[in-house]
Amino acid sequence: MLNIGIIGAGRIGKVHGESITRYVKEAKIKSIADSYLNDDTRQWAKDKGILEVYTDYKKILNDPEIDAVLICSSTDTHSPISIEAIRAGKHVFCEKPIDHDLSRIKEVIDELGKSKVKYQVGFNRRFDHNFKSIKSAVASGKIGQPHILKITSRDPEPPSIDYVKVSGGMFLDMTIHDFDMARYLLDSEVVEVYAMGGVLIDSAIGKAGDVDTAIVTLKMQNGTLAVIDNSRKSAYGYDQRAEVFGSLGQVSVANDSGSTAVISNEAGVTGEKPLFFFLERYMQAYAEEITEFVEAIVNDKDTSVNAEDGLQAVLIGEAATKSLHENRPVKLSEIKF
Amino acid sequence: MLNIGIIGAGRIGKVHGESITRYVKEAKIKSIADSYLNDDTRQWAKDKGILEVYTDYKKILNDPEIDAVLICSSTDTHSPISIEAIRAGKHVFCEKPIDHDLSRIKEVIDELGKSKVKYQVGFNRRFDHNFKSIKSAVASGKIGQPHILKITSRDPEPPSIDYVKVSGGMFLDMTIHDFDMARYLLDSEVVEVYAMGGVLIDSAIGKAGDVDTAIVTLKMQNGTLAVIDNSRKSAYGYDQRAEVFGSLGQVSVANDSGSTAVISNEAGVTGEKPLFFFLERYMQAYAEEITEFVEAIVNDKDTSVNAEDGLQAVLIGEAATKSLHENRPVKLSEIKF
Amino acid sequence: MLNIGIIGAGRIGKVHGESITRYVKEAKIKSIADSYLNDDTRQWAKDKGILEVYTDYKKILNDPEIDAVLICSSTDTHSPISIEAIRAGKHVFCEKPIDHDLSRIKEVIDELGKSKVKYQVGFNRRFDHNFKSIKSAVASGKIGQPHILKITSRDPEPPSIDYVKVSGGMFLDMTIHDFDMARYLLDSEVVEVYAMGGVLIDSAIGKAGDVDTAIVTLKMQNGTLAVIDNSRKSAYGYDQRAEVFGSLGQVSVANDSGSTAVISNEAGVTGEKPLFFFLERYMQAYAEEITEFVEAIVNDKDTSVNAEDGLQAVLIGEAATKSLHENRPVKLSEIKF
Amino acid sequence: MLNIGIIGAGRIGKVHGESITRYVKEAKIKSIADSYLNDDTRQWAKDKGILEVYTDYKKILNDPEIDAVLICSSTDTHSPISIEAIRAGKHVFCEKPIDHDLSRIKEVIDELGKSKVKYQVGFNRRFDHNFKSIKSAVASGKIGQPHILKITSRDPEPPSIDYVKVSGGMFLDMTIHDFDMARYLLDSEVVEVYAMGGVLIDSAIGKAGDVDTAIVTLKMQNGTLAVIDNSRKSAYGYDQRAEVFGSLGQVSVANDSGSTAVISNEAGVTGEKPLFFFLERYMQAYAEEITEFVEAIVNDKDTSVNAEDGLQAVLIGEAATKSLHENRPVKLSEIKF
Repeated sequence: MLNIGIIGAGRIGKVHGESITRYVKEAKIKSIADSYLNDDTRQWAKDKGILEVYTDYKKILNDPEIDAVLICSSTDTHSPISIEAIRAGKHVFCEKPIDHDLSRIKEVIDELGKSKVKYQVGFNRRFDHNFKSIKSAVASGKIGQPHILKITSRDPEPPSIDYVKVSGGMFLDMTIHDFDMARYLLDSEVVEVYAMGGVLIDSAIGKAGDVDTAIVTLKMQNGTLAVIDNSRKSAYGYDQRAEVFGSLGQVSVANDSGSTAVISNEAGVTGEKPLFFFLERYMQAYAEEITEFVEAIVNDKDTSVNAEDGLQAVLIGEAATKSLHENRPVKLSEIKF
Repeated sequence: MLNIGIIGAGRIGKVHGESITRYVKEAKIKSIADSYLNDDTRQWAKDKGILEVYTDYKKILNDPEIDAVLICSSTDTHSPISIEAIRAGKHVFCEKPIDHDLSRIKEVIDELGKSKVKYQVGFNRRFDHNFKSIKSAVASGKIGQPHILKITSRDPEPPSIDYVKVSGGMFLDMTIHDFDMARYLLDSEVVEVYAMGGVLIDSAIGKAGDVDTAIVTLKMQNGTLAVIDNSRKSAYGYDQRAEVFGSLGQVSVANDSGSTAVISNEAGVTGEKPLFFFLERYMQAYAEEITEFVEAIVNDKDTSVNAEDGLQAVLIGEAATKSLHENRPVKLSEIKF
Repeated sequence: MLNIGIIGAGRIGKVHGESITRYVKEAKIKSIADSYLNDDTRQWAKDKGILEVYTDYKKILNDPEIDAVLICSSTDTHSPISIEAIRAGKHVFCEKPIDHDLSRIKEVIDELGKSKVKYQVGFNRRFDHNFKSIKSAVASGKIGQPHILKITSRDPEPPSIDYVKVSGGMFLDMTIHDFDMARYLLDSEVVEVYAMGGVLIDSAIGKAGDVDTAIVTLKMQNGTLAVIDNSRKSAYGYDQRAEVFGSLGQVSVANDSGSTAVISNEAGVTGEKPLFFFLERYMQAYAEEITEFVEAIVNDKDTSVNAEDGLQAVLIGEAATKSLHENRPVKLSEIKF
Repeated sequence: MLNIGIIGAGRIGKVHGESITRYVKEAKIKSIADSYLNDDTRQWAKDKGILEVYTDYKKILNDPEIDAVLICSSTDTHSPISIEAIRAGKHVFCEKPIDHDLSRIKEVIDELGKSKVKYQVGFNRRFDHNFKSIKSAVASGKIGQPHILKITSRDPEPPSIDYVKVSGGMFLDMTIHDFDMARYLLDSEVVEVYAMGGVLIDSAIGKAGDVDTAIVTLKMQNGTLAVIDNSRKSAYGYDQRAEVFGSLGQVSVANDSGSTAVISNEAGVTGEKPLFFFLERYMQAYAEEITEFVEAIVNDKDTSVNAEDGLQAVLIGEAATKSLHENRPVKLSEIKF
């Protein structure tokens, strides 16, 4: 039975806690740490039977009975806590992104090189049933050699302007998932990026130095052409689709909704909107990623999403940001760190 | 070049006239006859280049240059004009039903036995692209041995009460198409019928002695169980679907609509309603049935929907009506004529 | 914290055990009893932290700490154990059917009349997200007054012939869910039944005195006409659909599948088959029904599916069986017990 | 009754001839001219009742009874014949593109400035039922302010290498339709283009100096971001889709197919492939564009697709070609002519 500590018990930390409690019989949550600990979190821990509740995450790292930690604290703490945890010999599951600063991600990777701990980055969408179906169809050769990849990723509502300011920009905050998805679905690296964006939803986002709508095109090493479209505000909810077109055919996935019910009446033939946002849409994916993390430890296998994947996604995000600012295609090799 | 005369130049007569003019190069409309001839019809004929316009259909039957007639007049005239036309040596396309009276249909069949003319009944739905796809899937063995057939047929609005009174009842007026469809799709005869119906839309229909909503089940000679559901009033338009379930799988068809456009917004994900009614839905089927009628004549082939098909559909309708009135399953062999 | 005992720890008993462990924080499984107890079941109990494992269910009924029992043993034991449990003052969740013998169901109802325990019958499909969507659309008046109900229920494979022999016949074993669904969706009672069936899949089923394919029509008290079609063997998996047509429109649900992936290639445009069978399809519904059972106890509310519902479904099943044998519509009032 | 002459009676010329004969009662084909006249074309003309058949198109232009001409000859002849026809006072329907050379298109526009004839360019997709539905949804404000436009356009098979060599490149030959579609759907001009392309299907296309797969992004004057993806070879047939995402929602269209039939079996749930290619997919659009051309003449209205539209589409194509070659975004204002 693995003992796990959760560092950062906000919304996503609790999601992982629930998943482990319900679905992962080889592990249990021994402790949580949250610097903004409140009564709700204390009650939540109590309900889950988690007895050790701290404000200082170091208590978890110093606990010799802890086997692994989940780093779910704010983004700026991901890489320093990662390094501390690795040095303490704890396996690490780290929410994305590892860092906005590529050199600090590099430091995490270097630290991992000196250690034997497992390290997994929270690209949860790789574990989604729909995207796994695409991956499987592509990997099996069913659609032949991939030629075109299209990813649509639109949020139902923008984050707060305060969050936008520290988010690293839409490409590092939101599109980063799609960059990882492109690498995952095609099993190939991004070579060059061209990004165009606009402020079409909220001028305050523009004032904060960011865009809210974007189309990003990617050239992949294997020759595939890829395109991602993003919006911070979709009136019909969370829009998460992808399509790979290849020499023998095409595979695509549509959105999930709460039921298959369709009402036909005077107004038309109407089905449900997509599931509202990431917690609804990816609940099962969150459970699977954390299950796989535990299994990687228990069975001493590689994690399927590692620190290098974390690095690449940020690297593409940096190139996209540079492309947007300079209005030209940017090669990944141009980004130095 | 075949010379064709249209007897009864109402809505459906004009549809056939248009089809021949546009799509059938081996035939032309030489004359029309309509006892209620009006200016619109005269103008329509002029536009189509039809020079001979009569009130008396006998002028068409007596014209030695006429090869074939389309009988599109009121139902009660179908069988007598059929017999006259057959005797005059004209090929006949007759709208459904041939007659409400089975013995008079039998007379038409007997007359055909003494003649070499072609005779086709207007079961247009057999020529519809969707239903032909089901037929083809079933006939090819793709779904194996048929076990269950389901037909949904719902009109967007009921006919006038005056029409209801002379219609022969819903089973002879509306379900008759579905009875023919069951025979067509399964290539098997109906053995027994059980019908239940209700007056759920308009009590005036009930007062006129008819029902407006019904479910009819059929036992087929090949063992397939079939069910038809009908309504005289569907809020979302003309609902025309079918499904055959068999030992190896299932084939089904959905409704057609004006475009594939789907709008996703706050209210849901909304596609278009089905095409409104039979003229919109079956326009191409009307063209194909009349094309095939001309080809049967030109190539001296059997018509694909003959007088026997016309008889069977009415026979099933009679059995269904009897079943409704007596609230018991009725064998077709019980219906004497 | 409610203490629950599971009587009959086969497949479905374990499903309920998992659900309670994962999702129901107000209850825990204290004990299980299974007369065919094996090592797998012992291990399963151990994994779930269930310490009391018996072969004799009376040990559960005699345990004063037990608040509620789940009766998941063989059908013939449902009613006697129900009565014992009610007398012991335990709340009861009982798998369907309560009994094949209506008079014994009546005894359970009579016993409940003398008691204050909660009693819920395992019509799990009422808790399915799709069917709840239909129910909600109908109940809200969105489709107006219901006119036609259609239910399709087809299994991927027939049960063993040994099971068929003790199943009570297809209508009591399989269609019983659809009978309950008709009552649930329409909130109205069945008045009359007409059933037709055939042996189209396996002649051994016929030799065992049963049918494997059926169409059953129902007249409802509120005037709605309903039809159910069943097959014991669907080549494409578990087919679970329904549609209600009313004065203002229609609501329908399609099958669920493992993902929304669609592959377009030379062969066509292909989506996934429906989820294979009831365990895959109704996993979430099983969790919800058991959650609601616990909540009914905790909050002292009525259960949403009670013994009377259990009685009605069997009553309709008896009428359907009689209809099939006598080939005539049978009123529920004809069935005496 | 307008007299029309067809210049170039190849495949598309005959399509327009059929449409006029069948659907346009205010016009008839008086003559055709084709420099490669063959027996098939002579027979076709005879069947249509077209008595004047020439090899020299000037005979049509010199015929004072001719009101309008359809220029369906090879691309290099479009602009010179356009100018001759305009000077001869004939209304002109000209297949796309007017010319690969922008200055020659400008000459046509200049000539039109001195004339009162109608001039329509053959962007048939504007008349397609699906794309008109999107246009209508966008124009009506149903999806609010457009933010993102996505167009997918993939052919079932590449043209011959000989054709590729004279085609002007994929952007002028194939994407030109999508450029026009972007302008049409958004009612806004393209400001800047970024194109990336690859040779993924046939290296001979690369040797001929062209690409066979491309993604092109557009910045529109109204701020909308647009993306087009193209392939010369889609294994599942002609893929013609579009989607506009806006502040209030999204509208999208899917492909048309021959029927709605879906087969469910062991292999999955399979619908038909899209209609094979442009003749199948856009037959109705061809009829509507030519009908509208005639109506513009008869009612003295502006044509809905004029020479300026023809110019803009080629201009965007030139910018896309330049962008591809220079691997940078290109402003339309950079293209001089």
